[in-house]
Amino acid sequence: MSDSKPRGVYVAALTPVKPDLAPDTAAFVAHCRWLLDQGADGLAVLGTTGEANSFSVAERLDLLDALADGGIPGNTLLPGTGNCAIPDTVALTRKALEVGSAGVVMLPPFYYKNMTDDGLYAAYDQVIQRVGDSRLKVYFYHFPQMSNVPISHDLIERLLKAYPGTIAGIKDSSGNLDNMLEMCRRFPGFGVFAGSEQFLLPVLRAGGAGCISATANVTIAGCVDVYRNAQAADVEARQEALTGQRLAIQSKVLIPALKRIMARATGDAAAWANVRPPNMPLSEADATALFAALDGTGFKLAA
Amino acid sequence: MSDSKPRGVYVAALTPVKPDLAPDTAAFVAHCRWLLDQGADGLAVLGTTGEANSFSVAERLDLLDALADGGIPGNTLLPGTGNCAIPDTVALTRKALEVGSAGVVMLPPFYYKNMTDDGLYAAYDQVIQRVGDSRLKVYFYHFPQMSNVPISHDLIERLLKAYPGTIAGIKDSSGNLDNMLEMCRRFPGFGVFAGSEQFLLPVLRAGGAGCISATANVTIAGCVDVYRNAQAADVEARQEALTGQRLAIQSKVLIPALKRIMARATGDAAAWANVRPPNMPLSEADATALFAALDGTGFKLAA
Repeated sequence: MSDSKPRGVYVAALTPVKPDLAPDTAAFVAHCRWLLDQGADGLAVLGTTGEANSFSVAERLDLLDALADGGIPGNTLLPGTGNCAIPDTVALTRKALEVGSAGVVMLPPFYYKNMTDDGLYAAYDQVIQRVGDSRLKVYFYHFPQMSNVPISHDLIERLLKAYPGTIAGIKDSSGNLDNMLEMCRRFPGFGVFAGSEQFLLPVLRAGGAGCISATANVTIAGCVDVYRNAQAADVEARQEALTGQRLAIQSKVLIPALKRIMARATGDAAAWANVRPPNMPLSEADATALFAALDGTGFKLAA
Repeated sequence: MSDSKPRGVYVAALTPVKPDLAPDTAAFVAHCRWLLDQGADGLAVLGTTGEANSFSVAERLDLLDALADGGIPGNTLLPGTGNCAIPDTVALTRKALEVGSAGVVMLPPFYYKNMTDDGLYAAYDQVIQRVGDSRLKVYFYHFPQMSNVPISHDLIERLLKAYPGTIAGIKDSSGNLDNMLEMCRRFPGFGVFAGSEQFLLPVLRAGGAGCISATANVTIAGCVDVYRNAQAADVEARQEALTGQRLAIQSKVLIPALKRIMARATGDAAAWANVRPPNMPLSEADATALFAALDGTGFKLAA
């Protein structure tokens, strides 16, 4: 994986889905290229927003191959690879390395709840040992509202001690800024990414790495604006405008809302019409409310 | 799948695991055979207790093949087949049909939370359509504490209406007896299995189908005793004794506790020593406390 540490604005890229619910590989590659063209520092593909856990491992391996074949630079990628089953996490992590990813974002095994830190340690340890590749850079994925399996600071400390060259950082999607800031303080050099651009500026100021965000699929211009102007006198106002957009979007179910925004912006309704169940397309009523709220923020998607 | 409806005591069978964390196929088949010999009416293999979600789909397909090859009658099987990704659920459900299973126990897609009933309906609908086999009998798996994706009565009603010959029942592991009794009342002919033998007798009396239980791996004799003697004058006392055993075991983390009990009972510590992370073997302190509590209930495992 790359020597330069991932920093900046990473997009938890959407995965376009065909009417038969198969991933639309060509549209996925085109979307990823467009995000990089818009200034994204990188792509956290196959995460929650990418509907990764609604795709089989084979489908996900194909999507990573398609990015490589499509010329998306591997060093821009932070693919999601964490599954409930260790062999699945190992297979996806190996493929991420094969396509030259800068790192991987690794959910803990998320079916069993109330597991001990010993158990979660053993799961990460098994994956790292079985992948057995010194290029591996692991970013934890802390998203207690979705996984119901939080990543404790003690677990981070133990794994950092055991694998200082491998454990690289975390995506914190808890929405708890204090947790992000505490990790910035407690673990110097550990790459803390806010899971939302709402927290981009405070996390950067605390020495964090940036953000990995779902809504950045459509707010990428505003995210890049805040990141590149983090030292500017008016950056607080830029962050505030960006936060307004984020909050307007997250008032709806994120994946269908983001796909609906992409459909409007690109005019390609067909490419963005489908989500894999249990997610469902946005209702017309929700879409109308979303666009009313979003347009009130001055939001404009370059497409 | 079989014409006779599954009824009685079904064991959520444990999966023995080798020191390298691979499933121990031979020990698994032997354990399933032993459970049937002990009087189990059937086997809900590859469920929560079977660590199914810690195994890859390929590993699970192999385990189902091994049961068939090992002579375990298909009509005793209710394999767990529900995954986060529809193609995985389809693949496992097809294999369950191929080995002649009486039905399948199907978790909803459990990664995304707070999905609508429309979304869960679409997920089950997709699976049933794609499997496309009139022999299919689906048992929902309601386990909100683990999946965080409850199965509502409205969802059951909608799917029962759409697929009356396919939607067969539910395993209710919520621990909420009222929920089980309400389903027995509301959905005549729908096979309600309590997810714990603690509720075996009240569910049978309400017209339910029986229980599918993790702890039945070791309490099978007591479960069969209550089921076969449901009309006996002293059945309440039998149920009370069985409940005492259940409660003693579930005071510990179930999978490692059950494997530890099997190790002691069979004398084959090696076969039962391993669990796949994030589950961990029972600590010595927990084992000591477990055996003290369990022995106080008069528990004895025939092995």
